[in-house]
Amino acid sequence: MKIGILGTGMVGKTLGTKMVELGHDVMLGSRSAENAAALEWAQASRGRAGTFAEAAAHGELVFVATKGEHTAAALTLANADETLAGKVVIDVTNPLDFSKGMPPTLTISNDDSLGELLQRNHPGVRIVKALNTMWCGLMVAPRMLPESHHTFVSGNDADAKAQVVALLKSMGWRDEEVVDLGDITTARGTEMYLPLWVRLYGVKGTGAFNLKLVFAG
Amino acid sequence: MKIGILGTGMVGKTLGTKMVELGHDVMLGSRSAENAAALEWAQASRGRAGTFAEAAAHGELVFVATKGEHTAAALTLANADETLAGKVVIDVTNPLDFSKGMPPTLTISNDDSLGELLQRNHPGVRIVKALNTMWCGLMVAPRMLPESHHTFVSGNDADAKAQVVALLKSMGWRDEEVVDLGDITTARGTEMYLPLWVRLYGVKGTGAFNLKLVFAG
Repeated sequence: MKIGILGTGMVGKTLGTKMVELGHDVMLGSRSAENAAALEWAQASRGRAGTFAEAAAHGELVFVATKGEHTAAALTLANADETLAGKVVIDVTNPLDFSKGMPPTLTISNDDSLGELLQRNHPGVRIVKALNTMWCGLMVAPRMLPESHHTFVSGNDADAKAQVVALLKSMGWRDEEVVDLGDITTARGTEMYLPLWVRLYGVKGTGAFNLKLVFAG
Repeated sequence: MKIGILGTGMVGKTLGTKMVELGHDVMLGSRSAENAAALEWAQASRGRAGTFAEAAAHGELVFVATKGEHTAAALTLANADETLAGKVVIDVTNPLDFSKGMPPTLTISNDDSLGELLQRNHPGVRIVKALNTMWCGLMVAPRMLPESHHTFVSGNDADAKAQVVALLKSMGWRDEEVVDLGDITTARGTEMYLPLWVRLYGVKGTGAFNLKLVFAG
């Protein structure tokens, strides 16, 4: 499949490398077509690099993997209403604000979320919030953990979520590990988990952990 | 031990009954000494009922288990600066606002928390946030779940947290299941998990679940 990835940081490159490994034709997009990180990644990983708009146009399915502060702008710069019309966009970002130091706060939360903002900004794009509750190394290698654990999907379009679940399964996630929380407003829940995640990361000194939901038998 | 519990709803009564079972001398406190729910509980459970101030004065250790909207007022009505001076207060509450319908929002979050508010209001009281990430039935019966799972403590006073951990162990929690997140500001993390908890409750139709943290080996 042709996959676009908006964002050339650690998350974008990690997702991109995994997608190439899975046999996809991947383009990493950034503000500039001359982005050194993206060009270097493309050469090393047999992928491609381009602008946000080029990566969005390239992908049949597109990840948004920028820093939260750039997510909305990345879709605007990508000309999303045209390049992403009708496509499934997996939003793995979080609205973290590190500008006031640690711990970060959220720039949007409580009665709104970044996932909802993207969906409002681009009603013709099928936004699915997913994978935003963990370190990127774990997103693409869920079997790194010694037992089962969970990830969440939020979105308004059932078919879009089904496509995301299928992709997650190809990445090593098991069917029963993906919890469909409901519509895109449920992204509030997963984004607001980040302040706890950040504290756990601080206490445990590793990002290689995730949540397992344990139910009474 | 003498234990006070501020709040006579399901959470307060569940905690109270467990504390009686563990052999403690328990008083449930409410706005009025004539609270029917508290008096009924006291008769059925071999506990006591009184005002917030009486329950606070009674307890060597005190739980706050009101609805979040009443938590700060409960401590004020309890005359906390006198009745709770130097005592350990376990805050199990969450700042949930159901007034705008479902899902609830938080009345305080992001750069503050209810736990911090209580600690600021009453600097002489040793506030420990704990157990607020789950259904009350699970707080007092952690072995109800078929495997290990986790709870969190947040507070500024290490000795106070150690007392809470000891009490949690007496309730069935295992040492390694209690994660000390740090000072009381970390209550932001556990309180902000509630929007995800509420969605999981909605999807799964049960409150009998909790988080297990799974780490890479």
